[in-house]
Amino acid sequence: MHYAVLGTGIVGRTVAARLADLGHDVVIGTRDPAATAARDEYADWQAAQPQVRLAAFPEAAREGETLVNATGGQVSIAALTEADAAHLDGKVLIDIANPLDFSQGFPPSLDPVNADSLGELIQRTFPRLRVVKTLNTMNCRIMVDPARVAGEHHVFLSGEDADAKKAVRELLHSFGWAERSILDLGGIETARGTEMLLPVWLRLMGALGHTDFNFHIQGA
Amino acid sequence: MHYAVLGTGIVGRTVAARLADLGHDVVIGTRDPAATAARDEYADWQAAQPQVRLAAFPEAAREGETLVNATGGQVSIAALTEADAAHLDGKVLIDIANPLDFSQGFPPSLDPVNADSLGELIQRTFPRLRVVKTLNTMNCRIMVDPARVAGEHHVFLSGEDADAKKAVRELLHSFGWAERSILDLGGIETARGTEMLLPVWLRLMGALGHTDFNFHIQGA
Repeated sequence: MHYAVLGTGIVGRTVAARLADLGHDVVIGTRDPAATAARDEYADWQAAQPQVRLAAFPEAAREGETLVNATGGQVSIAALTEADAAHLDGKVLIDIANPLDFSQGFPPSLDPVNADSLGELIQRTFPRLRVVKTLNTMNCRIMVDPARVAGEHHVFLSGEDADAKKAVRELLHSFGWAERSILDLGGIETARGTEMLLPVWLRLMGALGHTDFNFHIQGA
Repeated sequence: MHYAVLGTGIVGRTVAARLADLGHDVVIGTRDPAATAARDEYADWQAAQPQVRLAAFPEAAREGETLVNATGGQVSIAALTEADAAHLDGKVLIDIANPLDFSQGFPPSLDPVNADSLGELIQRTFPRLRVVKTLNTMNCRIMVDPARVAGEHHVFLSGEDADAKKAVRELLHSFGWAERSILDLGGIETARGTEMLLPVWLRLMGALGHTDFNFHIQGA
């Protein structure tokens, strides 16, 4: 499978590396490839991941059969707009971003929140994308390696398209998620719920002093 | 101990009955005791709980050494204002309410949300109350009987006053919560996190078709 991971931060790099390790063709998309390639942090990672190709958003989106949104939530719509709607048509978009707003400092707030969500906003803005919100409720190392956290814990799914969700389930299995650990909440509107887990996630990180934890719904 | 439970809905009644079963003196507060007593649902419950006394908010707040806010989140400030600040001075308030706004139908949204919380609003409005936000992230039957949900799961604490939190911990133990199941998130600002669990809680209820579940933080 050809994957395009949009976003070259720690989340995008972690997911891109895991997809490449699993044998997929992976292109990682950014706004300005030259500027990204020049960043030390990115360059170090790229040297360890020569099989992942860096490209501008439109080229990455054109090549990817399945897209992963790992851009910052505040710039996701701009990044997808730049990627060009013609390259998005009918494709599955796995949305793992959160609309965190750091403009007022830490901890960030969410925008949109409560009566809307980033997942819904992306689906409304690009109605021919098949958006599946998932994996956004945990640290990125757990996303691609759930065994990092001992014991049972959950990953949530929200989205309108049953076939897209089925494809995402299969990808999650390949990451190490057992079928019983995948909790389908329903339509993309339910992304409001999972994005609104971020405020308690951030405060748990503060209280626990680490990020190797995840939500488990006991009794589910 | 004398407890005043403010609010006569299912949450208030469930907590008041449990406190009475544990041998505490319990008064349950409402705006209009005659109107509450005349309601069939309340009357049936009162007949089974003759030891719990019904009183107007000011009288209930005056009698209670420890207060439980189980009013609807949209009317909590009005109820506490009616209770009279002189009766709140220095007391512990266990805030188990959520600021759910049903004015746009189901599922409700939260107000306040994101940059504020009901817990903080109560603490700001009544600075001499010692507010501890807890128990608001689960169905009320689980609050008072955590063994209803098999396996490990958590209850959160948010608040500024260490002695108040210690007292609330002891109450939680008497309800059946093990020390390891109580997760102190920090100050009252962390109530933003736990109140914002409600949107996913509501969607989990929809997806699972029941309310006998609770959050467990795996890796905590």
